[in-house]
Order: sequence, then C-alpha cells, then structure tokens
Amino acid sequence: MAIGASGSDSTSGRVRLGMVGGGQGAFIGAVHRIAARIDGQFELVAGALSSDPARAKASAVELGIAAERSYGSFEEMARAEAARPDGIEAVSIVTPNHVHAPAARAFLEAGIHVICDKPMTTTVAEAERLVDLVESSGKVFVLTHNYTGYPMVRQARAMIGKGELGDVRVVQVEYPQDWLTERAELSGSKQAEWRTDPKRSGAGGCIGDIGTHAYNLAAFVTGLETEAILAQLTTFVPGRLLDDHVQIMLRYKGGARGLLWASQVAVGNENALKLRIYGTKGGLEWTQEDPNYLWFTRFGQPKQLLTRAGAGAQPEAARVSRLPGGHPEGYLEGFATIYAEAARAIRAARTGASPDPGTIYPTVQDGLAGMRFIEAAVTSSKAGNIWTKVG
Amino acid sequence: MAIGASGSDSTSGRVRLGMVGGGQGAFIGAVHRIAARIDGQFELVAGALSSDPARAKASAVELGIAAERSYGSFEEMARAEAARPDGIEAVSIVTPNHVHAPAARAFLEAGIHVICDKPMTTTVAEAERLVDLVESSGKVFVLTHNYTGYPMVRQARAMIGKGELGDVRVVQVEYPQDWLTERAELSGSKQAEWRTDPKRSGAGGCIGDIGTHAYNLAAFVTGLETEAILAQLTTFVPGRLLDDHVQIMLRYKGGARGLLWASQVAVGNENALKLRIYGTKGGLEWTQEDPNYLWFTRFGQPKQLLTRAGAGAQPEAARVSRLPGGHPEGYLEGFATIYAEAARAIRAARTGASPDPGTIYPTVQDGLAGMRFIEAAVTSSKAGNIWTKVG
Amino acid sequence: MAIGASGSDSTSGRVRLGMVGGGQGAFIGAVHRIAARIDGQFELVAGALSSDPARAKASAVELGIAAERSYGSFEEMARAEAARPDGIEAVSIVTPNHVHAPAARAFLEAGIHVICDKPMTTTVAEAERLVDLVESSGKVFVLTHNYTGYPMVRQARAMIGKGELGDVRVVQVEYPQDWLTERAELSGSKQAEWRTDPKRSGAGGCIGDIGTHAYNLAAFVTGLETEAILAQLTTFVPGRLLDDHVQIMLRYKGGARGLLWASQVAVGNENALKLRIYGTKGGLEWTQEDPNYLWFTRFGQPKQLLTRAGAGAQPEAARVSRLPGGHPEGYLEGFATIYAEAARAIRAARTGASPDPGTIYPTVQDGLAGMRFIEAAVTSSKAGNIWTKVG
Amino acid sequence: MAIGASGSDSTSGRVRLGMVGGGQGAFIGAVHRIAARIDGQFELVAGALSSDPARAKASAVELGIAAERSYGSFEEMARAEAARPDGIEAVSIVTPNHVHAPAARAFLEAGIHVICDKPMTTTVAEAERLVDLVESSGKVFVLTHNYTGYPMVRQARAMIGKGELGDVRVVQVEYPQDWLTERAELSGSKQAEWRTDPKRSGAGGCIGDIGTHAYNLAAFVTGLETEAILAQLTTFVPGRLLDDHVQIMLRYKGGARGLLWASQVAVGNENALKLRIYGTKGGLEWTQEDPNYLWFTRFGQPKQLLTRAGAGAQPEAARVSRLPGGHPEGYLEGFATIYAEAARAIRAARTGASPDPGTIYPTVQDGLAGMRFIEAAVTSSKAGNIWTKVG
Repeated sequence: MAIGASGSDSTSGRVRLGMVGGGQGAFIGAVHRIAARIDGQFELVAGALSSDPARAKASAVELGIAAERSYGSFEEMARAEAARPDGIEAVSIVTPNHVHAPAARAFLEAGIHVICDKPMTTTVAEAERLVDLVESSGKVFVLTHNYTGYPMVRQARAMIGKGELGDVRVVQVEYPQDWLTERAELSGSKQAEWRTDPKRSGAGGCIGDIGTHAYNLAAFVTGLETEAILAQLTTFVPGRLLDDHVQIMLRYKGGARGLLWASQVAVGNENALKLRIYGTKGGLEWTQEDPNYLWFTRFGQPKQLLTRAGAGAQPEAARVSRLPGGHPEGYLEGFATIYAEAARAIRAARTGASPDPGTIYPTVQDGLAGMRFIEAAVTSSKAGNIWTKVG
Repeated sequence: MAIGASGSDSTSGRVRLGMVGGGQGAFIGAVHRIAARIDGQFELVAGALSSDPARAKASAVELGIAAERSYGSFEEMARAEAARPDGIEAVSIVTPNHVHAPAARAFLEAGIHVICDKPMTTTVAEAERLVDLVESSGKVFVLTHNYTGYPMVRQARAMIGKGELGDVRVVQVEYPQDWLTERAELSGSKQAEWRTDPKRSGAGGCIGDIGTHAYNLAAFVTGLETEAILAQLTTFVPGRLLDDHVQIMLRYKGGARGLLWASQVAVGNENALKLRIYGTKGGLEWTQEDPNYLWFTRFGQPKQLLTRAGAGAQPEAARVSRLPGGHPEGYLEGFATIYAEAARAIRAARTGASPDPGTIYPTVQDGLAGMRFIEAAVTSSKAGNIWTKVG
Repeated sequence: MAIGASGSDSTSGRVRLGMVGGGQGAFIGAVHRIAARIDGQFELVAGALSSDPARAKASAVELGIAAERSYGSFEEMARAEAARPDGIEAVSIVTPNHVHAPAARAFLEAGIHVICDKPMTTTVAEAERLVDLVESSGKVFVLTHNYTGYPMVRQARAMIGKGELGDVRVVQVEYPQDWLTERAELSGSKQAEWRTDPKRSGAGGCIGDIGTHAYNLAAFVTGLETEAILAQLTTFVPGRLLDDHVQIMLRYKGGARGLLWASQVAVGNENALKLRIYGTKGGLEWTQEDPNYLWFTRFGQPKQLLTRAGAGAQPEAARVSRLPGGHPEGYLEGFATIYAEAARAIRAARTGASPDPGTIYPTVQDGLAGMRFIEAAVTSSKAGNIWTKVG
Repeated sequence: MAIGASGSDSTSGRVRLGMVGGGQGAFIGAVHRIAARIDGQFELVAGALSSDPARAKASAVELGIAAERSYGSFEEMARAEAARPDGIEAVSIVTPNHVHAPAARAFLEAGIHVICDKPMTTTVAEAERLVDLVESSGKVFVLTHNYTGYPMVRQARAMIGKGELGDVRVVQVEYPQDWLTERAELSGSKQAEWRTDPKRSGAGGCIGDIGTHAYNLAAFVTGLETEAILAQLTTFVPGRLLDDHVQIMLRYKGGARGLLWASQVAVGNENALKLRIYGTKGGLEWTQEDPNYLWFTRFGQPKQLLTRAGAGAQPEAARVSRLPGGHPEGYLEGFATIYAEAARAIRAARTGASPDPGTIYPTVQDGLAGMRFIEAAVTSSKAGNIWTKVG
C-alpha cells in the first residue's frame, strides 16, 4: 500500500505557474488546474485566461489570482512576469491549437518553462522552429500527451522495454468517440466549433485532435519508429470542414505493422482509446476507459489481468501510482503525473541538476513527431492513400 | 422461454447425408457432424471420410456408416449414391480447400445437394464455374460461413435492415488469433500444415482462412456492397509460405468506410472475431467469443446490452434461438442453424416448394464474393497496396 | 485443437432411450433431446410425452417415434418396453417434480436405467426410498444437475482436488433470475405455473428450482460436506404460494463458511448462476452465463483468465470439451456431457464392466442431498432462521 | 462536456485546514490531502501529524506547514489554533480508530469543524456522546464514507429516490479483499497491525474496516432503515485477534431483505465493493473498482450501461462530476467530493447560511449508525447468529 513518487506531496519547492487560456467554461483548462493541484507541486499565480477581457478578469478572481497578475494577452504576461522577482517559472498553454506556438515562443523567449497542450502547433514548419527555440533556450518544454501518464501505460512500456513481448510485430491502436456524430459545431458547442475550424485547429480535425494521441501512445509504449504511413481521412458529416474519421496503415522500422483508427462518429463510444501490441513472445492490451487494468499474455500461457499496484506491477508503474490496487485512479491522476514530472524537471533546472533519471514526459520532439504525422496523413490521404514517409 | 424454429426437432423428413473428409482426427468434420445432429434433421449414411483408406474405413465404423457406403473417393461415392434408391440427398464437404470445388462439382453433377466448407474454392475462375453449375443444376448449395448462424448476428442484420442505425458509415471488423505465432506447421499440427500450404489452401493464408469469415460477416450484417479494397498482407513467421497477418481498408458503395484486420500471430487471442458498425443514428458491437450479447446504442442514449432471447430480441434472432436468455448458446448451435436452414431448403426442394421465407444461408454467390475478395486482396498487396476493385 | 472424449461420436453402441414428459411446448424436454443427440450416443425410440393424449401423440409423430411406442402413461411404457426385445435401455424423466419419483420407480423396477431431472423428488422420504431402490436394482441413475457438465466447472473441481486453492475457507454461490418478478403464474406461463404450485413442485419454490442447482454446484466443485445451514426464505410477490427469494448461511465440515443467494425477482438477471471459492492459497470464480472462462488467482500473483481448452486447461476439462479455445461452448454442450457420461455408464453396465474411471455424473445420492438441503432450508426458515443440520 | 459543481475551483473562500495523523508513510492521510487539494477549496496550514515527534516534524516540513504550527499532540493543536486569529477552521482526523473520538471532541470543543475518518469511534457509547457534542456545538461534522462521493453512487441514490426501481425488495452488498489472507500483521504492515488490534480498532476487524463501508453504502443509496441483522463473524487466519470475514442477513423496514458479505481473505479481490439493488420495477448494479459505470434494468427491457456524465446521467451525478464521459474518474475524485461538500458546509457556516440544498455528506448520525451496526453484528455473532436489533 505504498504511495509512489507522484504522490509525494512535498511543497517545499512549489513551482510558480501561470496559465494562458482556460477561462470560465473551458474544459481542458480546468483539467490542467486540477492536474497541477493533485500533487501540490504548483501554485497558480498568474493568468491570461481569456481573449475576452471580462471573462479573463472574472476567471482570475475565481481562481484567486491577484488582479495585477491577470493579463489581457499572453505577450503582456510573458513580459511582465519575466520582470518580476517572484514571476512565474512555468506557464501552461491551454488554448485552441493555433495559439500554442506563438504563446510558447513568447514564454520561452522570456526564459519561462512551458507546459503545452497538444497538438503542439498547426504546421510542421512552426513545430520545427519551436524545437530550435526550445533547444537554444535550455528551458523545459512539456507536451501534455496525458495518456502517457497512466501507470499501466508506463507498465506496458517497461514490459516491452524489458523484452517481455519479444520483438513487436503488430500494433493496433484505436480511438473512437461519438460526440461529433451530428453537426455539433452548429449547435453552440465551443469544443466542437474550434476543433472543426481549420483556422484554429490546423489541417487536421479528428487526426489532430485524437489521432495524434493514438499515434503518440503507440510510439511511447513500443518505442518503435515510424517509417511510412498510408492514410484515408474522411469527413462523414455534411458541411464539416475537417476530417471526422481516420484510417491509417503504419510501417515501423524493423518490420512491425500498425493500424490506427480514430473516429468522432462511432456511436456508442465516449473516449475509447485502446492499444494492443503483439510480439513474438507475448501480447498486451490496454483501454483508456478502464485504465487500471492491463491484459498480458505470454504465448502459450493463460491470460493475465495485471492491475495497477497489484501483483506484477513494475517499478515504472508503481513510481507514478498514488493508491493501492483496487482503488481506481483515473484520467486526472494520469494528467497529474505529467505535471509531477514537469515539476521534477523544472526544479532540477533551478540548480542545473538533472531530474530523477526515471522522469519521463512528452517533449517538443514528440510534438514535432505528432505534427509530422498529421502532415503525412493529410498528404497521403489527398494523394489517394499512398505510402508517405513520416518526418 | 419458447424455443425457436431451429429447435424444432421434427424428424419426419430427415435428410440423408454423406460426408467427404472429416475422418478421425479432423476438427471441422466433427463440428459438421454435431451441427447436423443438434436439430435432428439429418442422418449420416455415407462417407468418403479420408484419402487414407484405412482411416476412412475405421472412421466409418465409428460413425455407424454401413461398410458398403464407406467409399474410397468422392467420385466413387457420388456415382454410387446417385445410383441407390436410398442414396444421399446431400453431401457435406469438409476437406482442405483444394478439394472443395472438384468434390462439389461431382455431387452437383450427380444431382446431390451440397453443403461446403469455406473458402469455396482456391481460385476465382473455379468459383465462377461453380456458380454456373449450381445455377444450371437447380441444386441447393450451402457454404458454411457459420458465424452467420449466431442469433445475435441475425439480430444485428435485422436491426440494420430496419434502419435502427440509420445509414451505415463505419464498419470495423477484426479477427485475431494466435495459434500460428510460431511455426506450428513444422511441429506436426495437421491444421497448420495444410492451412499454410499454397497447394492445399490457395493463394491466401490468413486472408483465406479467417479473413473471408470477417469479410462475409460484415457483408451479411450490413448488406453493403464492396467497391474496392486496399490490402497489405504480411508473413511474420520466417519460412512460412502464406500470409499470417492481414490489414485491409474497404470502400463500400454509398460511401461507408471499413477496416478489416485479421491475424494468426496476435498473442492472447483465441478466436476473437469482432464486428462493430456505426451509422448516422446508432452503433452495434458483437464479439464471437461472447456471442449471446449484442451492444446497441442509439445516438445520445444509454448503451444497451441486448441478450439472445432477452428483452429486445428481434423475431429474426428468436427464430434461430433454442434456449431462453441466460442459457448460453455457442459455436455449435450457430453452426447447427446453418444445417437447419439447409435442411429446410433441401426438404422444400423435394417437392419444388420454396422454403420458409425466413430461411437464410450463405450461398454459392457468397462463396464467389469471398474468392473475389481474396483475389483482390492478394493483388492489391502485391501491387504495393493500391485500391483494387472487388469482383 | 483436439476434441475431447465427449466429442467422440461413435455410434456403434447407441443407447435406446425413452422419454417421460417433454411434449410439444415443454422447455426442458427439448433440451434433454438436443443434449442426447449432440454426441450421437442415444436413439429416442419411445415416449410418454404428455398427460394429454392428443399432445402425446402429436409430439411422438413429430419426433419420429413409432406410433406403437407412444404411450399414454409412464406405467404402461415401463411395462411394455421391458417386454420388448428391442425395448428401451434408459428413460429420461422430464416432468414436473411430483412425477419424478413415481416414474423413476416404475422404470427401475422394470430394469430400465433412469436419467431424471432435478429436484429428484418432492420429499426427503421419497428420496430415501429411491436411493434404496437404485441401490438394490443395480441400475444407473443420473440426475441432470447439468451445470456440473461444463468444462470449466470440471476444471475448478480438478484444481481444488489437486490443492491449487489450499484449504477452502469461503464459498459464495448465487443464482439470481428475474422471470418471476411479477406474477407470471397468472399470465399463462406453464413454466411459472407448476414451479409456483406446491402440489407439483414440493415445499420449495426458488429453493427447489434453482437453489438446489447452486447448492449442488458448490458441493460438486469443492467436495465439501455441509454441516448445517441457516436459511431465510421469502415470498416477495403477493399471492405467490412458494418462496421466490432465498438467503442461506452454510457451515461446512472443516470450518469453511458459505453464503448462498438465489432469487427469481432480481431484475436484470437472466440465469446468473455464479460460484466463487477462496482458499488459503488461491481463489476461483465462474459464471454460468460466460461459461468458457474461469478466473483463477494464486495469492500474491496476477489474476489469470483460464479459457476452456486454452492454456492451463486441466485434463478433466479437456475430457469434456468438444471445441478448441475461442469457439464458445454453451448450456447444451454442458447438458450433453451429462448424457455422454450416462451413455458411458449404461454401456459399461451392459457387460457389467466399470465405466471409464473419469466418468462423473450426479447420482441418486446427490439427489437425496438436494432434498435434504431443501428440507433443512424450509425447516430453518420456518423456525425463525436457526442453524439446522443437513441430512 | 460541462464540468460539475465539484469542479468549480474557486479559491476565494479557501478553508484553513489542520490534520491529525497522516504523517510520512501513512496511507489514508495522503489520500485526504489529495482529496482536499483536487478542488482547491482547502489550505493545509497546521498538523499534529504523528505521535512520533521526529516524524511529525519531518512530515510538516515536507508538507510546507510552518514549524510553529506543527504540534506534538492534537490537544495542543486544538488549543493553540483556536487562539490564533488565522487559526484553522477545520481539522481532518486520519488516525487509527481509537483516536477519532477524543480528537474530534477536542476540536469541536475548541469551535473547530471536523472531518473524520470511519469508523467514527470504537464504541456506541462514545458515538452517542459525540452526536450530542456535535449537535450542541453547531459545528460541521463530516465522516469520510468516501464511497458516497462517487457520481454513479449519487446517480443510483437519485434514481431510487425518484422511484425508478419501484419498491426495493433486495439489497446485495459485498466487499471482498484479500490483503489479510495471511498474517500480514506479523510481517511489518502497519496497516495490518492496527486494523487487527482490538485496542486500536475496537471490537470489529473486517466488520469495522470495510463492513461499515458496505453497510453505509447500501443505506445511502436505498434510503432504507435497518430493522435487525443476523451476523456470523469469522476469523480464518490462526492467531488473528479480530474477525476477517463477515456474513450478515439484513431485514429492512418495509420488508426488503439484504445480504452483506465482507472478507479480507478472498484471494483475487483487491477492493471489490459491489452493490446490487432490486425493486419491483427495476434493478441496479455498481462496482467500486469500475466506478464510472452503473447497470440499470427496467423489468422487461434491455439492460442499460449508464456512464458517468453520459446519456442518462441524473443532475445529482452531474453535480459531482468533473469530466466528460469516457474520461474515468476514480477513488480520489470521489473522496474529493466529500471534501468539496464539506467546504460548502463550512463556508455556509461562516455566515450562518445554509449550504447549497444539494450538499450531501455522511454525518455524525451516519457514524452512530455505523457503530450500532458493528455492535449489533458482534452481539449477534457471539449469541449464535440470532436476529439483533440495530440501534
């Protein structure tokens, strides 16, 4: 019943945090704030919470942010906070996609670490420039591919790393949802509006919103590099401007084969991200909606149902687990683990030390890989579904 | 607690049946025999049970077949039985694939109805000739795509036919197994031997053995016609002569999109055929290993778990159900339903009548469609995974 | 992919069978007939299928029973068949409970083996007399506690027998249904009518109909003997004459503790018999509605999902399995195994030989144990829920 | 995708909180702290974190508690904090059971609100005195029966309250674990040590630790009052001083019947609290380990799988939900909801206002009910398992 490192709630070195986006009514901003609070490693002290000034102000009051640290724009915030002796050390960027890159640049240039939602940018070129900037700045950049924070995802990655599956042959990853089955973008859903708008989302709809999560998860767990993909993006809902359905074949270096399916029109699916991996010696299956379980089979042996913090848990899973087995952890805890890892990296950066060697988080390189994946998918699909190199 | 028509065990008009293949040690032959017995509609009275004469004889004795009706070859059997006044009315062909077509021809030409295992032939040309022969002969030809016999598969088909899903957009069908993860064909498994031998299986390995089942099931349930497919067939196990892993994109007439995945190297999967269908109004999910359940969601409403013979069962499902809800039916009952349907058709043919209008079974046309699917998949894969018309 | 002994479909020594009850419209009679046919070991040649002469006759015609072997009463049938050189060797008794004992007596006295539905009689005294008669007659008597025929139930029994659970401490068995939630006995359900009628069912309603199944299953799997029970029987539906809900505490010899819950008013349950057993070293869980699975945990190790004919299958399970893993077997196959075991015993009896030592079926002693259990439950409940010895 | 009231992270009125117990290495203390942080409604500013002074001090440093507000005893803390103008408004008591009552008294008498772990006290008498004190003090007293905080538990309660199940007939509640299968109290597990020690736990082992949770959950969801119980407590592990296995029959006012099973030796169960309720019109099933789901069946209709924040969610569930459907919430979020409710009550108490009418939390009366349940269970068991009034 031990509590993993993520549960360490030492507050001695809390990170001073600002936020861009995430004002009242936003979904993902509230998620980031809970994630930042769970382990008590952050203190939210500044914000540019909305492009609407009144909403920005009201949101700041509600969150206990001092009036003078509630800013009208992220540019102003980066400048002002960099100038304060008690200025923020890190910023969370939780806006629609098209703001990610300019905001990230502003804070990195001001010497402030960045925690950024995905997809990282709206184009590959923008992503490449951001990689350069992060590298030259020496700042911490964390991309919130939050599903990599789930303990059983860490477990799966560790097991594959240790050779428990032998050589990976087959990757099946799928991410069906149903919330865009009808044209929700016309019925006042803010979430649906910007996600189906190319100006704010970039060239990908479903592929950018959830396809990248699926792609990132498969890469994170298997460690495989993609050679090429063959994609067919479809828009089922009449009038919609971006894809709402994604079918992709993947060829990995070394010969493994993958299939990626993502959909926002698969009625009866809420958020059913699922990863299955089969190797020469074993197989693994994990489902986001039941995240405390991991199915594992050694070839020729009975199927095992591994549980978070139960028998068979690897140290890499225990490290990011807060509760004993049978006490379910969920989406927010997985998200919080990304924040806890970010806090470790940021605190180590204060003194120029390296963070705990077990520290893992999605980086700016993962963000670039995601953008290259989206670009290749769009290119392949437009060219008539032909094999297209990734990156 | 009523028992469906399949359970009717009237024996007044038992069909006299012969069998080709299925001697001692064969798997699928024994399955066919149990399926034929379950509803008591057949009487097995003749056989050419093995190409090995001693085994043929011993098998016949064990099955209570009279010595003079145990034959050394299917040709002999067709000839002799056609000449007897009490000769067989129908034959079950349960051999490796390459014998299906010649045996079927022999019996059809002798005026005997045919029940044949799948895939129907080893080439499209052979399949086309068989279609012609069936049509000119006027005989009943039943292909044992047995998964179409499951009550909840019938239920799914009926619901889609009645518009409960609206227009079908998405078809996800998968069929993972793991029994060929290693090179079982070298370790004495007869099943593995012929299934991985192009001479006996035809041009497809996994695609022919289980890919066709998946393809047929999707077509049976949705009623959609395939326009084109894009396939990548892979052989993972070194030295194997046929594919053991299949990835296919499908374009259906009317705009629906499909993905078909079949594998014989997916460790931890026994026989995990699964079909998911999503339309403009609803979604359905069915899994062969838990066949008494069907998940159904109307968009915007709670998910429902429909059970065989439970609340919400359609007449088309009840018709082929033998037991009340909660009393699980399985693979053999689904298979038996194909036999029960065959018996209805054969008995109707005695008098030239039409069978009960609800009678449904996979036909020679379905067999041809399956062969065209295999051929298109092999062609697409060899050509570098390009869109290829089917049929 | 081998087929177990149950699948052996040798017909060389088919058992000539008669049936009492089971005319048109009856549920359990049809089940017995399918079970008898699946492995091809029986031939139904005589019947007293209904107390209604017209229905008896029509049913016989439908089943292909010769007119002169369709009898008006079981007494007549026992007499006439015993006198024929080709008379039946065994009879299946599938009537309401109150007919079981007199019919069984008649056939045993005529030298005919008996296969009888449960509960065996309506009183303990009747059961004791039947035990005596079976023993003095030397005839085979098989009680169709069909759930003992499931392969994974055999597996559980074998594992406990081999000590895989250590000493058994805890037995949780439950059997919820919902079909008597309302007063179905007034709405024309024949099943409901006689099951809620003390004259035809005996002193127990739910306890006799399904409680005995649960009790028998727990005893079969664990091998434990009951010391005493404490029962509370409840009738929830106003006007009903027998219990429809059962709660029982059990004390087993050696110190194990049990809980048995059975209900016919538990809305949302079809036939959800479930057994869980916990010992000093491990635990097992099995559910009738998903009978191809058995959960097994060694203390301190990951949970395993054992599958019928999959990795980890014991010989005792393989012996009664007809299909490879992933090809689900169901209720009818489990029932057929009881018939296959009966056939083995009856054929051995022809020559005075012992049947295959692995042959297992519920006996007249199990029937007596079931009646003692019902009696003790009724007694305990009436006495205010006090501990009552069983047997 | 709206976020419920619990997700409101307004910090304008943060509650100043102290903690008794919960020093380094404690499990439940860390859980309380995360729960208090998730919604940002509390600020931990004082503590008497351990009876071991060095550990208390080190724990306080780690948690960012000022040195002068880290106390050596709860008595000192109550006194000193009551005297400070910025003293704590509320205290969380997370010690072994025997300290709950004296600590609660000290803070209530000092005018400080109390959040207390369960079971509330070690005797009924102590619990009754505490009820009196809470009532005379006018302070908020919250008992952390945390399972009442799960959204789908709130949903179940709301549905029953609205009559969706008709009259409740049957309550099945079970809580199996396996962590005390062997004598863990001798192998250095602190959790096991005090929980099996009558001096620190009171007269109940398993019954007090988890049996009360099960009892409370059933009462919370159904609203039924218990008339009497009949209990059998067992100690399976040799040498253990308290029960590790619980079987209880319950009679509720109005005629409903219940069964409660709790075990700490059920191998293969981590924390498998499960509640099933059946009424005249419908049934519900909920499992703690998969808390985002609730099975619901209307009699005669298909089973529905309701999901947290999915279609069919009641306002009472949405109110305490932080994430859209498919984004699993877990144990910590349910626990946090108890804290969020406490914060609402405490803030309302600042001005003498009533909290939001939807505010629900387990009270001192629930704590008394729990103690009466434990006492009755121990009494019934010792008296030979006879019906015993509760309270």
